[in-house]
Amino acid sequence: MVYLKVAYNGRGFYGSQIQPNVRTVEGDIIQALNNDGIKITNYKFLSRTDRGVSALSNILKLGTEENLNIKKLTHSLKDIWIYGKTNNEMNLPLTKTYRYYLFDNDYDEDLIAKSLSLFDGHHDFFSFSKYDGAEETKRAIETNYRKKGSIYILEFKGKGFLWQMIRRIVGSIVDYANGNLTDEKILSALSGKSIISTTPFPSEYLLLYDIETKCNMEYDEYVIRILKKRFNDLFADFSARSLLENECFTYMDETEKLINRD
Amino acid sequence: MVYLKVAYNGRGFYGSQIQPNVRTVEGDIIQALNNDGIKITNYKFLSRTDRGVSALSNILKLGTEENLNIKKLTHSLKDIWIYGKTNNEMNLPLTKTYRYYLFDNDYDEDLIAKSLSLFDGHHDFFSFSKYDGAEETKRAIETNYRKKGSIYILEFKGKGFLWQMIRRIVGSIVDYANGNLTDEKILSALSGKSIISTTPFPSEYLLLYDIETKCNMEYDEYVIRILKKRFNDLFADFSARSLLENECFTYMDETEKLINRD
Repeated sequence: MVYLKVAYNGRGFYGSQIQPNVRTVEGDIIQALNNDGIKITNYKFLSRTDRGVSALSNILKLGTEENLNIKKLTHSLKDIWIYGKTNNEMNLPLTKTYRYYLFDNDYDEDLIAKSLSLFDGHHDFFSFSKYDGAEETKRAIETNYRKKGSIYILEFKGKGFLWQMIRRIVGSIVDYANGNLTDEKILSALSGKSIISTTPFPSEYLLLYDIETKCNMEYDEYVIRILKKRFNDLFADFSARSLLENECFTYMDETEKLINRD
Repeated sequence: MVYLKVAYNGRGFYGSQIQPNVRTVEGDIIQALNNDGIKITNYKFLSRTDRGVSALSNILKLGTEENLNIKKLTHSLKDIWIYGKTNNEMNLPLTKTYRYYLFDNDYDEDLIAKSLSLFDGHHDFFSFSKYDGAEETKRAIETNYRKKGSIYILEFKGKGFLWQMIRRIVGSIVDYANGNLTDEKILSALSGKSIISTTPFPSEYLLLYDIETKCNMEYDEYVIRILKKRFNDLFADFSARSLLENECFTYMDETEKLINRD
């Protein structure tokens, strides 16, 4: 048994879990191993991510006794980087940390903070997930947030999440901040007394940030350097474009005032 | 004669000026007018922009006596927004303002400021352009900069620019900041005493910010509202993604330190 520490760009995949006829993270890794003559029958990501969701640190459990060369394996992959591995056994389930990057559309911060805190703790998340036949829809999660510039970083920690759960919680928080959802409705749904319908927010701002493995990983310095360069290049690109678009907005806002002055 | 105030997303075009077999801003606008039964033989953008360069405010001079409906015209276009028009005559050439959004790769700000200032004034920009047969390579420009977060906003004002001139000036400024170009070499090239080779920086961070028309425009409120929404959506998207990638970088930086500690 080996555990791999994996980062991937969710935009390229129909999710982490293997499915026929579409590109998945598991599918690409298993294929790359097969191409290398390594047969794997038993594999599973410790956290399943949806189509479009990226991971900075997911853990892939692989049933193999081979001594994998993760640098070489990463070289043969696209949009996936395997930068750590360990043979230590882990006590499952582990605690996962997700972060959602929510743009502040002039929300009242108190309302964001208050509604987020309603989800903290042990609740029935049936209304805040897409039902996939799960026997149990109760989960215990810990919520937190920080604000940086125009972005709320909403953090969710827990040992297990339901399908679309975080994206629907974020949708509900925004509904609450916009006055379209009340404390009573959220609390009643969370207690399982009623069912409400919720809309998931976009997947591209959700990141599987970390999984707490509590064991030493054998890291590959080369893959980490490639990832650092990648993240820095993307940060540079998005930062420059963000400011450019912001100045365009301001220019149009000023232009609009010229009309209203006439 | 009518002057149109035009914004466009440079990523969709091979430049502003019409060319056969490729998509251009002029080409799309003239085609849309033709489709509407309006024949135009005489047209010209007051500032020509390269492939990939966006404009917040370019001015298209059109030889027509028709009373154009710019809202309807914009509706039939993609990646182009016509939000103002006027029949007032203008005294050409007008002053253009370009902004380049440069990510700060840990440059020494003093070196950026100093090298930018070398380009301020009246110089021979032959070495800082791609030669296209222009008879005169001397130009007078005014340079300025501000810094916002990790981004330098480099501003260039002038009545005329040569091909790739701003992108090559930016490339030279970065070369100077990195110690690969000296004051002497820049000044000698700007005086026309020597020729140096320069590399243009990417076009997607260059914006034609404004052209000073000094006359009242008839604005279309509807098109301006569409543009405001577009710029705000892009700002939201890039801001969230910029922060997400930045946190990914920090995570990898911390992970790298775990290795070096062993």
